[in-house]
Amino acid sequence: MRFYDELVDESLPAERQTVPAITNVPQAEYPRVYADGRVIFRIRLPLAKSVYLGGGQGLCQAPVPMKRDSQGVWSLTIGPVTTGFHYYWFNADGAMLNDPGSETFFGNNRETSGIEIPDPIFISTDLTNEPVASFYDPHGGPQGQMQERLYQSAITGSWRRCLVYTPPGYSDEANAKTRYPVLYLQHGIGDDETAWSRQGRVHFILDNLIGGVSSSPFPMGRSVPRAKPMIVVMENNSAAYKAATSAGNHDPSASDLPRTSGAFGAVVVDELIPLIDRNFRTLADRDHRAIAGISLGSELAMSTAFRHPELFSAVGCFSGAQYYLPRPRSAPSQAAAPDAPLFDPATAFGGVFNDAASFNARFPLFWFGAGTAEVLLNQALREKVAKLRAAGIKTVLYQSAGTAYEWQTWRQCLNQFAPLLFQA
Amino acid sequence: MRFYDELVDESLPAERQTVPAITNVPQAEYPRVYADGRVIFRIRLPLAKSVYLGGGQGLCQAPVPMKRDSQGVWSLTIGPVTTGFHYYWFNADGAMLNDPGSETFFGNNRETSGIEIPDPIFISTDLTNEPVASFYDPHGGPQGQMQERLYQSAITGSWRRCLVYTPPGYSDEANAKTRYPVLYLQHGIGDDETAWSRQGRVHFILDNLIGGVSSSPFPMGRSVPRAKPMIVVMENNSAAYKAATSAGNHDPSASDLPRTSGAFGAVVVDELIPLIDRNFRTLADRDHRAIAGISLGSELAMSTAFRHPELFSAVGCFSGAQYYLPRPRSAPSQAAAPDAPLFDPATAFGGVFNDAASFNARFPLFWFGAGTAEVLLNQALREKVAKLRAAGIKTVLYQSAGTAYEWQTWRQCLNQFAPLLFQA
Repeated sequence: MRFYDELVDESLPAERQTVPAITNVPQAEYPRVYADGRVIFRIRLPLAKSVYLGGGQGLCQAPVPMKRDSQGVWSLTIGPVTTGFHYYWFNADGAMLNDPGSETFFGNNRETSGIEIPDPIFISTDLTNEPVASFYDPHGGPQGQMQERLYQSAITGSWRRCLVYTPPGYSDEANAKTRYPVLYLQHGIGDDETAWSRQGRVHFILDNLIGGVSSSPFPMGRSVPRAKPMIVVMENNSAAYKAATSAGNHDPSASDLPRTSGAFGAVVVDELIPLIDRNFRTLADRDHRAIAGISLGSELAMSTAFRHPELFSAVGCFSGAQYYLPRPRSAPSQAAAPDAPLFDPATAFGGVFNDAASFNARFPLFWFGAGTAEVLLNQALREKVAKLRAAGIKTVLYQSAGTAYEWQTWRQCLNQFAPLLFQA
Repeated sequence: MRFYDELVDESLPAERQTVPAITNVPQAEYPRVYADGRVIFRIRLPLAKSVYLGGGQGLCQAPVPMKRDSQGVWSLTIGPVTTGFHYYWFNADGAMLNDPGSETFFGNNRETSGIEIPDPIFISTDLTNEPVASFYDPHGGPQGQMQERLYQSAITGSWRRCLVYTPPGYSDEANAKTRYPVLYLQHGIGDDETAWSRQGRVHFILDNLIGGVSSSPFPMGRSVPRAKPMIVVMENNSAAYKAATSAGNHDPSASDLPRTSGAFGAVVVDELIPLIDRNFRTLADRDHRAIAGISLGSELAMSTAFRHPELFSAVGCFSGAQYYLPRPRSAPSQAAAPDAPLFDPATAFGGVFNDAASFNARFPLFWFGAGTAEVLLNQALREKVAKLRAAGIKTVLYQSAGTAYEWQTWRQCLNQFAPLLFQA
């Protein structure tokens, strides 16, 4: 993992104001980015008849044709595109292919090229004339640790892997008796357990929040912690019951979720939480356990928490409104259940919202966030939250300005959500 | 990361005796493997004129043409190929492309498709009729942990990342005062710091060695630890001095190493070791510090250790003979310095081998290993070791039967080398 350490001098001629993207493999010159978020893509395919750039919502809404030169090199400049991380790929004569110049990231259920667009804040400088890092960049302060842990799941009949973030100081001798609250944090459709660290930068966001590192250039305050030190656990949403027992065990209350995630709640409750509480110094009670996720992951967070209020006290939903909502099939967003009903607080999640007082007491933090540029989803989310509020349910609603169904929205969501956790 | 949990019933018709490779992305049916190591590759490229399979030494020595069906699907069955991990890619009309059905791994200086071929031992069963896992598979016993740690390098002028394995029990309260020896383990040319965990399975190999888990089917002994609990640190060989100081600081004794690795020894000695000793419970002396690597990484291990005998007492070289040896340019192995001189113990590494008694006292473990199928490299290695022995240098030489310049060789090397460490 690399970072933008410097961008080019803007007094140079325009064509020299680019640097290779930090998501490129070493020595790869393309794609190149401008400080303003424009990107030059380039790939050599001399025999191809047509080449298009494809990508996630924040990069391009539809495939964009590339232009061939006399050497068979296809290129394209787009943007400015949104700050942050975007998936992309090329389509050459109908075949999807990744950019050999880019690292790959697991998304869309496959390995996919990705590009990190520099944060404009980076171009600012602080009083010492140093460029300012983003809230999702490392700042050189105390670091938490990312660990991976494998376990054999009896529920899915397979080995499974979770990634675990422990906060700065967790391994210090002085904290040997300290116990920590835990956030269970889910990825969205098509991603896996690596997404929150690789695409999402979860560890840097938490390090900066816990360490009180400010992203604001004036001054570089490092003194006011903005989030409680916490453990964050990331598992894979893809969790189906093992074949022999799938008919009997499929969770009926999750029947509107994809079958491939049908066992996820059971894995979390019966296997993952015990594993984490056994192996880490956790505060193992509901007041110190939260669950959140992106998209499908937010549905899984809600369905798991609402069936187990004895385990969770806080729920976060990032870009999570696509279920329970009718939408044109041509919507530029992600897959939805084709005939999903309108969200109805009276029936959703087995009627959990009917007793608002009880719900509010059980879940003092029920948090929603989405980007303003994911227009349909955002509109649906605002309607959903309005209905919940009309039913007396207390919610927080956050809007990430100018971002779409993309990682920058979810980095922002985490940065807003985490400081509210475990304040009781 | 997934594992072969079961292979198909060999009493089935041949065409049904395959399973998707565990290195495939979820739901991808191809490539598929047979228990005997044959592989079926398949990719849909309707408009391509020609498609070849390319891969690492253990998979195919030269590109193999694939065959198109009427639907534009290209396929190929090869093998049996060597057990273990292999890089591969497709070449369609001159363009290198990865398999959309495969995970990617950083190798050859880019993201590359990879395939894990099942270990034939897996088809064996133990007395309870359970399939037997390999020495590089998880066995369900106590696990070490993989962590990543970022740091700002003054030497390279960039953020750098190391991955750190801590052994089973490291975080147990009972071991809060226990200190551990450290192995610094390098990847080879074109890989990065993730290679030893993703392709090499370093954590499973160490877990099994430390836990005394036997790969032998009869019996599944778990009682005799075969290696000392140790910390393993993996960094990126790619480490050039930052531009401003490169002329003055380039390490002259490493002048036959690629410039892109010229600062690696300095990073290890001046930044990495202090970082690790500060942040982990290490035994911070030469008797409890070893360094090993693959290929270029083995040269870096030697050059770093021999200049710093006050820091290291053991050195391991895996497939490491390509420098200092003339070889036909057409050799099917990796890049060599074109006019590399014959290995001469009298002059190599500044003459460190001239005082054999002193060398042997300083480096009681000087270990070499390679695969018998990497013919030229292996021959060169045996000649090199013979010269060292003739000069009175004590060495261990290990031969991995039937494996080439590939990860299975290096997994075997680590499995043989690690038990010899830190025995004093």
